[in-house]
Amino acid sequence: MSENNRFEKQIGFILEIDRLKDIFRRSYVIESRRLENGAEHSWHITLMAFILFEYAPKEVQILRILKMLLIHDIVEIDAGDTYCYDQEARLDQEERERVAARRIFGLLPEDQRQEIWSLWEEFGAGQTLESQFAQAIDRLMPLLHNFYTLGKSWQEHNVTRDQVEKRMWPIKKVSSKLWIYAKDIIDKAEEQGYLAPAPHLTNQQKNPSPY
Amino acid sequence: MSENNRFEKQIGFILEIDRLKDIFRRSYVIESRRLENGAEHSWHITLMAFILFEYAPKEVQILRILKMLLIHDIVEIDAGDTYCYDQEARLDQEERERVAARRIFGLLPEDQRQEIWSLWEEFGAGQTLESQFAQAIDRLMPLLHNFYTLGKSWQEHNVTRDQVEKRMWPIKKVSSKLWIYAKDIIDKAEEQGYLAPAPHLTNQQKNPSPY
Repeated sequence: MSENNRFEKQIGFILEIDRLKDIFRRSYVIESRRLENGAEHSWHITLMAFILFEYAPKEVQILRILKMLLIHDIVEIDAGDTYCYDQEARLDQEERERVAARRIFGLLPEDQRQEIWSLWEEFGAGQTLESQFAQAIDRLMPLLHNFYTLGKSWQEHNVTRDQVEKRMWPIKKVSSKLWIYAKDIIDKAEEQGYLAPAPHLTNQQKNPSPY
Repeated sequence: MSENNRFEKQIGFILEIDRLKDIFRRSYVIESRRLENGAEHSWHITLMAFILFEYAPKEVQILRILKMLLIHDIVEIDAGDTYCYDQEARLDQEERERVAARRIFGLLPEDQRQEIWSLWEEFGAGQTLESQFAQAIDRLMPLLHNFYTLGKSWQEHNVTRDQVEKRMWPIKKVSSKLWIYAKDIIDKAEEQGYLAPAPHLTNQQKNPSPY
């Protein structure tokens, strides 16, 4: 591949990802109460990871976390934003996002396609400490957005406390400090009535047998 | 300062910077042709620096560049976006942005306030290779946005080729590859009629005496 061809591919990718600015999420921007898009969300959580890095496990590399968060939502350009509490849409999310990753990351020169693809897969798999911390930050910010917009998006989608708490579990795995904080926010959100009441559970569901 | 107080300051800062999503620039998003905001712009150029890093001088540290680009426009939350071709607005830009930096970076714990402040000052001063490369990327992307929206913003503000070329000079200092590309885009923009004709210059202005 000629040097110019390489550069053209890189610019092609940079132009293509402009479209993430038009992919809207379910969270609302705090002040203007408009839906947030994937590009500005990615900026916010990348910077958040930089600011909260001291709460990550000691051995993680910040650069890998920042890169992961910068690229984690690019696939939504093709696959759309899949609402985390929409069980039906989540069924084919993985396949839709893989197709998107093949097309969009495939715009890059091969070495960079591989780098971005593997950062993206690592983020999704959540097996490394870096990806676990990146995931924790990606979960925590929407919690804050919901809380500081008085539960607007939760209420629009009838989201319950149980759902939110389950969604926040990855935080627990990687940072006790952030987990204690997230739990406190969830408690306050429930007190304020921002979250829908839990659907009726049988005792069996509440206390499932471990066998 | 207690540990909780430190954490609260960090969260306060993270919530405050959400407002950069409501600060609009003069560039248009390519597909939807709406004005771009400071948060999504910051994401785009941070990721662009990651993709184009091989064109930076060999000795620069990528992490410092990414951090610089993540934070470079936060002061616009208070100071507003100062259009780069508006000479009048630029007169008090520095003072407005310093006041903003004091307030907004001042929300952070002292050690982080100092880190962000010094990254921001370094970016503005453009004396280090990292800041020069970061500036080059920050100049190149609006050129692309203008070119791929058929000069929309340039035409709205009667921007001339000379102004754009001057604006792109920082690229020349730090990367010959990116400078050749930028020049080529400017040439094409002029051919396409995206740029306003230069105001009439006397020969003296065109060829100023070096003495």
